[in-house]
Amino acid sequence: MSDEMIRVTYRIECPGSVEAMAEKIASDQSTGTFTALPGETDAVRKRCAARVERIMPLEPAAYPGFPTDVPGPYNRADAVIAFPIEAIGTDIAALMTVAIGGVFAASGLTGVRVMDIDLPPSWACHPGPQFGIAGSRRLMGVAEGPMIASIIKPSLGLTPEETAEVVAELCAAGVDFIKDDEKMMNPGYAPLEARVDAIMPVIEAHAQKTGKRVMYAFGISSADPDRMMRNHDYVAAHGGNAAVVNINSIGHGGMSFLRKRSQLCLHAHRNGWDILTRHPALGLEFRAYQKIWRLLGVDQFQINGIAAKYWEPDDSFVKSFHDVMTPIFSEADRPLPVVCSGQWGGQAVETFERTGRTLDLMYLGGGGIHGHPMGATAGVRAIRQAWDAAAAGLSLDEMARDHPELRASLDKWG
Amino acid sequence: MSDEMIRVTYRIECPGSVEAMAEKIASDQSTGTFTALPGETDAVRKRCAARVERIMPLEPAAYPGFPTDVPGPYNRADAVIAFPIEAIGTDIAALMTVAIGGVFAASGLTGVRVMDIDLPPSWACHPGPQFGIAGSRRLMGVAEGPMIASIIKPSLGLTPEETAEVVAELCAAGVDFIKDDEKMMNPGYAPLEARVDAIMPVIEAHAQKTGKRVMYAFGISSADPDRMMRNHDYVAAHGGNAAVVNINSIGHGGMSFLRKRSQLCLHAHRNGWDILTRHPALGLEFRAYQKIWRLLGVDQFQINGIAAKYWEPDDSFVKSFHDVMTPIFSEADRPLPVVCSGQWGGQAVETFERTGRTLDLMYLGGGGIHGHPMGATAGVRAIRQAWDAAAAGLSLDEMARDHPELRASLDKWG
Repeated sequence: MSDEMIRVTYRIECPGSVEAMAEKIASDQSTGTFTALPGETDAVRKRCAARVERIMPLEPAAYPGFPTDVPGPYNRADAVIAFPIEAIGTDIAALMTVAIGGVFAASGLTGVRVMDIDLPPSWACHPGPQFGIAGSRRLMGVAEGPMIASIIKPSLGLTPEETAEVVAELCAAGVDFIKDDEKMMNPGYAPLEARVDAIMPVIEAHAQKTGKRVMYAFGISSADPDRMMRNHDYVAAHGGNAAVVNINSIGHGGMSFLRKRSQLCLHAHRNGWDILTRHPALGLEFRAYQKIWRLLGVDQFQINGIAAKYWEPDDSFVKSFHDVMTPIFSEADRPLPVVCSGQWGGQAVETFERTGRTLDLMYLGGGGIHGHPMGATAGVRAIRQAWDAAAAGLSLDEMARDHPELRASLDKWG
Repeated sequence: MSDEMIRVTYRIECPGSVEAMAEKIASDQSTGTFTALPGETDAVRKRCAARVERIMPLEPAAYPGFPTDVPGPYNRADAVIAFPIEAIGTDIAALMTVAIGGVFAASGLTGVRVMDIDLPPSWACHPGPQFGIAGSRRLMGVAEGPMIASIIKPSLGLTPEETAEVVAELCAAGVDFIKDDEKMMNPGYAPLEARVDAIMPVIEAHAQKTGKRVMYAFGISSADPDRMMRNHDYVAAHGGNAAVVNINSIGHGGMSFLRKRSQLCLHAHRNGWDILTRHPALGLEFRAYQKIWRLLGVDQFQINGIAAKYWEPDDSFVKSFHDVMTPIFSEADRPLPVVCSGQWGGQAVETFERTGRTLDLMYLGGGGIHGHPMGATAGVRAIRQAWDAAAAGLSLDEMARDHPELRASLDKWG
């Protein structure tokens, strides 16, 4: 019997005593019930009871996370609770159930947020990314610098043939990577197989002509893992090397099943994550959430960007970037961070400066490439110029002086 | 090309115009991006654009769902958005991604809650429950009346042999159904296979002796569907006929995979659901959520109860009960409602009166059976007496006059 512990940090908020609430959570999530029971001996408790290890007080909140009639202020603290590995094992479903899922049901809370999960060495049994940063670079043939990516636009509504035209344009424009919009899966007007049939010859022809094999990530997600594997196999059999996976929509089981059998580089879209994280007093911090999906095998992780078109503040994106770049057990479990949403190059310098001056990232422009006033090729060039500026320590305006594509982007979006 | 529509009702809250926000959601979730694009033609829009069909205004909210610096009040309305089936198809991952997941990311919202999903006839392709209400009755041999159930207590910490002793006691006490706590999966001190080996002979011996085969639901959940199927197969091969499935922890993919191959009656625990639903301005209403899991194949659905020990108000439980009892496409897609959490019989009359006077339910007592002052047999008897009172139109006090077990329950918990 191992004495390893899984440590979970909860941000607890309640009108009463946070310490008592932390003790209640530790009890509820192990041996507790609502009345004293004859069988609940000290021996039982010792074997698998969770233990509050540390309480770090925070300023009280004026407004509650969950609405309540109980007047504030609402006490807050971060509490570290340790769960014996003996009680949870190494199964992600067990971790989610014991240490995460049940906690949100506790009465008396006005807020609870899982801030981090500290996993012991036995959890290194999970597969993690198959390709990650190094594999992504190898497959795209990009030895250094950021990987410049785009997405099919409009997101939905194009036939396979229309999509292939957009792919041809983006390949000619010089991108390293193209993806289906996450909402593009297997619709009647553009089924996956027809998209593969139309798109892969374009990728292949571009590779033959230029030596550059652009990575195309097809949306293979299905709530039915058998269907998803057929999608995967079709992509792989036709020369594809990547897939967009909507991780929350397929769930832990779908991701685990896919990763074990996958030949493709798995590009994760986390749509639906926002409901788990957007209210700062509730849900899961990205730091905790992303560990689970990395262990399950995400190779590339979409994490928004500076000045994203969604709700997420820049500081949150910067933290997310550092989170995915921090090893859980080793550097190999780091996915490639995918910086995206409203990106057009104008955010390159700030992104570089705030994310540890790394070029190990994918930078994804949608409208920022398709909508460039001089066309998509200029859009890609402008983004590369912006990253060259970042790496050289120049401002965008300095770089734009003799780079008309970047100049045009700055004029349109700057 | 079918002209079926999927209609989703969103409760939208924002400081600005709710109508404009509904239009933005419809656009973002189909063809939109942040800048005007040459390819986005009217033809594309027509093929798959979502459409706001109806706006039902609500009173503004004084406090925002998601915290914001923008002063209130916050406008609110229910908006029905119709998505062409052509854009989504019948895949649950596509529905989650297009119509649900992405919506929570929209900037400018202070709240959004998916209230309901109206699915067109083509969605009847999903398997739904294999056993449901009728199958559960058949397997338990309970032709009429509520199915009385219990759970192993303490939840965690018992060895397989200790667990088998509790099972023997509960069988002797006269329950129809016993389950592992949802947190009991495959821990080191009580692995699933050892629990099956210890428990099934007790179930079998009781059946031999009394003719009554108690349904035991083993916790087979795993984030790895292969592992979960091995768990399933082990239970089935050893005479088990039910399993506890932690639906959020295994995800849509895990559930779909299991259902297609399952011989067991699948008892769903929704731990983690609370974070999706507890804040009334955010997340998913149970009405919407439960439809997805029913289509995926849940046979028995835990939905708390009156005076539950968790946060959920009674009104919410009552709505949930009606939700699961309302056919999606036919009566066969209704799971057995499992009334649970802090139940000891005292809630039977109110439950009966408020849920449509039905006895098609499972009533699950944990501490309410194990902790009965006269022992577990008396605990089960007290619960049956309480339900007899409900069905006969008597009050609990009237029934308790000549039923000492119920009397003792009322004295302890009433």
